[in-house]
Amino acid sequence: VQVTEIPTPAPVVDRVALEANLSTMAAARPGAALRPHVKAHKCTELARRQAAHGHLTFTCATPREVLGMAAAGLGDDLLLANEVLDPARLRALARCDARVTVAVDSEATTAAAARAGIAEVVIDVNVGLPRCGCEPAAAGRLADLARRAGLTVRGVMGYEGHLMMVEPRTERKVKVDAAMDLLVEAHRLVGGDVVSAGGTGTYDLHDRVTDVQAGSYALMDSQYQRLGMPFRQALTVIGTVIAAPGDWLVADVGLKALAMDHGNPTITAASAWFFSDEHVTFAPDADGPLAASRAGDRVRVVPAHVDPTLALHERLYVVEGDAVVDTWPIDLRGW
Amino acid sequence: VQVTEIPTPAPVVDRVALEANLSTMAAARPGAALRPHVKAHKCTELARRQAAHGHLTFTCATPREVLGMAAAGLGDDLLLANEVLDPARLRALARCDARVTVAVDSEATTAAAARAGIAEVVIDVNVGLPRCGCEPAAAGRLADLARRAGLTVRGVMGYEGHLMMVEPRTERKVKVDAAMDLLVEAHRLVGGDVVSAGGTGTYDLHDRVTDVQAGSYALMDSQYQRLGMPFRQALTVIGTVIAAPGDWLVADVGLKALAMDHGNPTITAASAWFFSDEHVTFAPDADGPLAASRAGDRVRVVPAHVDPTLALHERLYVVEGDAVVDTWPIDLRGW
Repeated sequence: VQVTEIPTPAPVVDRVALEANLSTMAAARPGAALRPHVKAHKCTELARRQAAHGHLTFTCATPREVLGMAAAGLGDDLLLANEVLDPARLRALARCDARVTVAVDSEATTAAAARAGIAEVVIDVNVGLPRCGCEPAAAGRLADLARRAGLTVRGVMGYEGHLMMVEPRTERKVKVDAAMDLLVEAHRLVGGDVVSAGGTGTYDLHDRVTDVQAGSYALMDSQYQRLGMPFRQALTVIGTVIAAPGDWLVADVGLKALAMDHGNPTITAASAWFFSDEHVTFAPDADGPLAASRAGDRVRVVPAHVDPTLALHERLYVVEGDAVVDTWPIDLRGW
Repeated sequence: VQVTEIPTPAPVVDRVALEANLSTMAAARPGAALRPHVKAHKCTELARRQAAHGHLTFTCATPREVLGMAAAGLGDDLLLANEVLDPARLRALARCDARVTVAVDSEATTAAAARAGIAEVVIDVNVGLPRCGCEPAAAGRLADLARRAGLTVRGVMGYEGHLMMVEPRTERKVKVDAAMDLLVEAHRLVGGDVVSAGGTGTYDLHDRVTDVQAGSYALMDSQYQRLGMPFRQALTVIGTVIAAPGDWLVADVGLKALAMDHGNPTITAASAWFFSDEHVTFAPDADGPLAASRAGDRVRVVPAHVDPTLALHERLYVVEGDAVVDTWPIDLRGW
């Protein structure tokens, strides 16, 4: 099967670029020093490639991601880096065939985890992003509460999501260090073996954590590309030109195939004018490779934000050059 | 089952508001004068409610929407208001148990339809939106080409999508009239019984078309609400407050549960600070109903754009007050 035979719109991953990204990261943060975040791809087959590169511990954002990884036999050590109160979902996590650790950041989330029979937790600490996470000074008290409730406290996590895009890199490093001062202080109060933090934007700025929760590095997007990282754009969303009326072209890749939260996706050698539910209207550069495009031609769109883009699709096509070499279900979608 | 027992995040439709919207539209454009666009909800059970209000003809944006409507027994007259070149999908449309009409706007799309055995087409005409659609003056020639290829040409369609949000209404009316001058001229050249156009923003501004392709009116979103239309906000996405650390609250409704292409969704009596993959961070108004919210409470988010938001979810919960009275699969997702 050739790329031109894939029903569009569809996400396509370049196997060579993906493997290069996985190798680069595995060299920088080998084995358990990386805890790949599956929310970036929601695909157990891609997680299996990460495992083949030596990473057997994973980060998840939703109960369904945890259960899907467990069902795929990738449940050696799954961290649900998110707070959950739903008793039914917590009970399913407690029962599943995997080592599951859940983040807690309050009395309510700790009590819910204990009641559902969850065995292990980490204390989620606010290191500057106004989202989940307890105050660093409150982490020790919360860990005590968890232990009294029968939970094993494995350590701490803290996500410095507000720093991923800080430029220049030197300033990002200074700010990450300050955020990690908070996490290290919380860890002193909590104890345990785990100090988990970070993401693709800060993966090489951490020297005091046990593992980094990077996910986007595998496939990449135009947002992270701007940071000049050593990861290649492995993912595009492929579309078919369905109209070529004159000054512009129209392809069948729209708002339902591309996440728009980080602004417009991009098309190499073209200007994307606007996106509709099922269309992109774009103008090819006059002397570029798309200038002679006609109805039926394929076009590749680079997503601005990889995580929510993949979540829109049912399967990921793996290509080498123009050949489709594999099709991977995006099987961790939903909650 | 109560609303508080729905696993979150989840889209919730207020049955009374939905039925009011369907009644209001059916009074304004009864029966075949409305061709409800299923892309707005991707839900055959909701389409069944539209049929119960007298609309037996529908508009679709993707082959899968057509095939799903046909399989649900709602295939009396399905217009695929979009261009398709994929031979396998066109053949499936030609074979399915429904009356299917496909939009064509070029020699390429016309030839693809004819080759696949499609029986009926409409000529898609550009009425000012730079997307698909042929020039009005070229519509007659394209209709001749289609007829020579053995296709029945039912008439014309033209979507004035660039005018949906024009304010004030008087200016919108003037511009819609000018766009419809183009469509009527194309219809004169093409012939046939169908002149299809419009959407929720212009549903009551058409006096020269046979049917209006409105979809958003059933569920509504914050974008269309700004036009002061007689339709109620029937859809919200419900989340659970998972953290209440102090100045802000965090709920489990993020970028993967809400489309962001029309800006941030809104929360009544609160300010939404930012959305992450699985979270919204928001500040409740000091003296509003959310001021005392705690972990475990439910919160309702109003989508900015209904169509791509529904496409993110597997099912739609129907509620009356606090009771869940039905659950409808969102079964027309994908392509």
